[in-house]
Amino acid sequence: MSKVRVHNFTVSLDGFGTGEGQSLSNPFGHAGERLHQWMFATRFWAEMTGAPGGDTGADHAFAAMHGPGIGAEIMGAGKFGPPGWQDDPDWKGWWGANPPFHTPVFVLTHRPRPSIEMEGGTTFHFLDASPADALQTAREAAGGLDVRLGGGPTVVRDFLTEGLVDHMHVVQVPVLLGRGVRLWDGLESLEEAYDIEAVSTPSGVTHLAFTAKTR
Amino acid sequence: MSKVRVHNFTVSLDGFGTGEGQSLSNPFGHAGERLHQWMFATRFWAEMTGAPGGDTGADHAFAAMHGPGIGAEIMGAGKFGPPGWQDDPDWKGWWGANPPFHTPVFVLTHRPRPSIEMEGGTTFHFLDASPADALQTAREAAGGLDVRLGGGPTVVRDFLTEGLVDHMHVVQVPVLLGRGVRLWDGLESLEEAYDIEAVSTPSGVTHLAFTAKTR
Repeated sequence: MSKVRVHNFTVSLDGFGTGEGQSLSNPFGHAGERLHQWMFATRFWAEMTGAPGGDTGADHAFAAMHGPGIGAEIMGAGKFGPPGWQDDPDWKGWWGANPPFHTPVFVLTHRPRPSIEMEGGTTFHFLDASPADALQTAREAAGGLDVRLGGGPTVVRDFLTEGLVDHMHVVQVPVLLGRGVRLWDGLESLEEAYDIEAVSTPSGVTHLAFTAKTR
Repeated sequence: MSKVRVHNFTVSLDGFGTGEGQSLSNPFGHAGERLHQWMFATRFWAEMTGAPGGDTGADHAFAAMHGPGIGAEIMGAGKFGPPGWQDDPDWKGWWGANPPFHTPVFVLTHRPRPSIEMEGGTTFHFLDASPADALQTAREAAGGLDVRLGGGPTVVRDFLTEGLVDHMHVVQVPVLLGRGVRLWDGLESLEEAYDIEAVSTPSGVTHLAFTAKTR
């Protein structure tokens, strides 16, 4: 069966996946871009944004696992837009005309709307569904490939709680946000279900690779 | 001036320095010994407990920094004994007749008692004092050597908040405790005051070395 994978999910040392005060101008709230500097320095990011250069060390190697083998993504409403995007009928996500997904993307929201076809193979679908039901829909759309769970922290936590995640790559950045949305809340003894590998890299971040024991 | 140092302070992936339900039989509450397995495997631990063997890799190298150059320790009431030890006039700490400190140790408590001289150079003193005042007392007792801040999490946090910590070694273990006492609460932007180095080791833990920028 196709796998459910989380990639490049970045948290602060105190475990916050996003800051407080998310808005149109601050998608990660008061965290700003501090969580993702490690990724901006990689060739993975340069290639995605059409920029030259980029490092090809361990940070890149981890980051570049984001795309291959993925046939669909599931994301939470908080990743698709700033608070209140459901009231804007023209909102089509943060990513411009050609979003970096290139697959069907299922946005979990209590206020679904018609699907939006973008350039480059991305189509946004809107689902009011449980994690298990959303996963079944995404798996069918993925055509045998894996399903990426795109975040944010609440959605990742919900899928972890239901035992639906096969691989998870978390990147821990040495900053302390102090407030925001935590990834780890309510996940006591999660390590019993996963093999966990930790790898610190010269950029200062620590990659945590979770592999489900029973899959 | 002598430094204030934290060593071998171990937290779970979700940031808890101790579990819930601390008691005489469970000093770390429901965390049990899960936080400290990495240390039990080192030669540092073997030497302290009189056992043979022990690894001498990176985990040992970090752990063994605990002793050299230290002239006094400050610890919180929660490290000295289980909840309620203040009601037991005979309580002399967890560590037996010859505790592994071999210096003056200042126990912060709102209910001070007379000092207790143990074997091997350890004397427990009891202080009802602010972090800064306790530090001044400990520095005088340390005779020019450094002061170790021994924990628990609340005490470390209090000293960090007041900018009193020069070096801090935190060990992050890949378990999720879910509940207990967090180290990181209320420390937003702590990274601005420290250089932080992260080093993962083959045992699966990640050592985080904090060095104050201005000292």
